[in-house]
Amino acid sequence: MANIEFWYEFASTYSYPAVMRIERLAGEAGVDVRWRPFLLGPIFKAFGWNDSPFNIYVAKGRYMWRDLERVCAAEGLPLKLPPVRFPQNCLKAARLALMGESEGWTPAFTRAVFLANYAEQKDISDDDTLRAILEALGVDAEAALEAANAPANKDALKQQTEEAMARGLFGAPSFTVGEELFWGNDRLETALQWARRA
Amino acid sequence: MANIEFWYEFASTYSYPAVMRIERLAGEAGVDVRWRPFLLGPIFKAFGWNDSPFNIYVAKGRYMWRDLERVCAAEGLPLKLPPVRFPQNCLKAARLALMGESEGWTPAFTRAVFLANYAEQKDISDDDTLRAILEALGVDAEAALEAANAPANKDALKQQTEEAMARGLFGAPSFTVGEELFWGNDRLETALQWARRA
Repeated sequence: MANIEFWYEFASTYSYPAVMRIERLAGEAGVDVRWRPFLLGPIFKAFGWNDSPFNIYVAKGRYMWRDLERVCAAEGLPLKLPPVRFPQNCLKAARLALMGESEGWTPAFTRAVFLANYAEQKDISDDDTLRAILEALGVDAEAALEAANAPANKDALKQQTEEAMARGLFGAPSFTVGEELFWGNDRLETALQWARRA
Repeated sequence: MANIEFWYEFASTYSYPAVMRIERLAGEAGVDVRWRPFLLGPIFKAFGWNDSPFNIYVAKGRYMWRDLERVCAAEGLPLKLPPVRFPQNCLKAARLALMGESEGWTPAFTRAVFLANYAEQKDISDDDTLRAILEALGVDAEAALEAANAPANKDALKQQTEEAMARGLFGAPSFTVGEELFWGNDRLETALQWARRA
């Protein structure tokens, strides 16, 4: 079966529409998706950025929020910004998403966290928010949080991020089909076409 | 009639497919286009960049060229990189494009310069290249070059660039429909839809 790797980061605003769209579009295209949460922080640090580029470059940030509003409106996606500073700390959510792969709940967990962040005005750096999401999915929250924060899983997320950097990723969402890299929510359709042809 | 402003910069790689597509797509949509060449240099300087971000951020630059290849292939556009350093100095071309507005040859001139730069491996900072393009369009090249480099037109390009910055532009190509800003070749279709509804 044709397949695609989906690289996303919970702090990435354009990852939100990609997360909400990919299962439907990949299903229609007959493409299998591997969900690969990673961290942009170390990659941005290598660029000399210690904050989101949308905060550093004000005009770009202002545009991004307006553009995201239009993108979400066109997709029928709710968008309501969190009351806390952008971006929220997403490390725990990323560790959980990676840990959930072996148990199969990564996609549903990821969608719930993005909705919590961008539609429900919740603090996704807070254990209680994450616990409630896990429980709603029928996951043992305490066991998941413990496994997510164990050294093996922390290392696995570091390796996932290092692999992303080694493969030339510099932003999120990104999609890879073998060596071929696609960047941005608006490249999802192109990436799926590529996967079908590959 | 619905209308759109098309902001482009000759050094901007993604302006190339936008320049080649906009007349056809705007025609199909029944939208009138005002071509507004401007300079990204002063805007990038305000970001602390003294070079193209595609040179500063190597991973982004590597991706951009590959992505541009795919975009051009999908559009049936030729792409052959110039032998000189990227980006070329585009100041003279921008001045000419602005100057040509009153005489109506800006769109045809712009397309010819982008083809020279991205498909024909010519040096578009060279007067001879620009002269040949003007002559092929039936324009008096010497008169055009003189008018383009006269103080009034130099100031007009500065003002155009200042207006771009004041309106929140931070990259090219960009499209404006009234106050609404769209950035990137892949937002052209959305911008045209917006213009139709406006």
